[in-house]
Amino acid sequence: MPKRNLPLSKVYQLLEPGPVVLLTTSRAGHANIMTMSWHTMMEFEPPLIGCIISNRNYSFDILKKTRECVINIPTADMAEKVVACGNSSGSKINKFEKFGLTPKPARYVSAPLIDECFANFECCLFDAGWVNRYCLFVLEVTQAWKDPNVKNPQTMHHEGKGNFMIAGERIKLKSKMK
Amino acid sequence: MPKRNLPLSKVYQLLEPGPVVLLTTSRAGHANIMTMSWHTMMEFEPPLIGCIISNRNYSFDILKKTRECVINIPTADMAEKVVACGNSSGSKINKFEKFGLTPKPARYVSAPLIDECFANFECCLFDAGWVNRYCLFVLEVTQAWKDPNVKNPQTMHHEGKGNFMIAGERIKLKSKMK
Repeated sequence: MPKRNLPLSKVYQLLEPGPVVLLTTSRAGHANIMTMSWHTMMEFEPPLIGCIISNRNYSFDILKKTRECVINIPTADMAEKVVACGNSSGSKINKFEKFGLTPKPARYVSAPLIDECFANFECCLFDAGWVNRYCLFVLEVTQAWKDPNVKNPQTMHHEGKGNFMIAGERIKLKSKMK
Repeated sequence: MPKRNLPLSKVYQLLEPGPVVLLTTSRAGHANIMTMSWHTMMEFEPPLIGCIISNRNYSFDILKKTRECVINIPTADMAEKVVACGNSSGSKINKFEKFGLTPKPARYVSAPLIDECFANFECCLFDAGWVNRYCLFVLEVTQAWKDPNVKNPQTMHHEGKGNFMIAGERIKLKSKMK
């Protein structure tokens, strides 16, 4: 997908709705993908994102050590691949090859962008102070990419056990909220 | 709405998709409502929820002091009221009266349930260790309620500046994920 730079001030608009994301990491030339739903915005700009990543995940140690990752947002046409990434471990397979996803080099981090996702946020580990206590990683987005042709993405929102809500209608109300 | 006890093990299924919620607090007999979108699950059971609440909000001090609140999940038929709660401050008005919302007594906490919301989670402040650093409140859900008649709720998901995505189609995939 052809991506353009997305201003960091707009990152929250894509994450605040709560989509399932794919988190990519890389260590010693081996890239991995993890499906993740437990995240929240923590600051607008520079964008800080809080993520809970279980220490049973292969990505946990890699993120802790490399301090870099990419948050990729998939759409419902990728549903089978999103679930496949969640059902398998990077300790055993190369998920990019196995599930036919395309890694693209990032600008600032060693973890790759997933080309099929309409948005990609390059992140550095900003605060590891609660990694041991809650498996909470505070990430800072340093570079954001988005496909400018995607307007109302059909993001996936996990309701547990493989049940997903797909983004529906959009409405706009008069609001003073950011 | 007629609510029933919801097992605490199922709370994540309603919050993980990322809906806008209404957070209620109470101090000295005065109840307040705050619109909130920056939250994430942090643990399945007992359910822990991480919430970012700006210290510019009237609810910030109340939650810090009373250490109790209720997380209420509204649906799109309440959109005008949800935005009105976000556009006003409880320091000046009684939002329940002003916006025609119905407070119901909770079981364990002094903050009221919003009757019009299909789900209500009574919460205690579990960890205030990062309230000063990130305005992060770690809440524990001690009692959950849900309207058993609501199956595929039309939750609201904020995309910034009064733009909302409304929950659409549901799909189920074969998954080992919790």
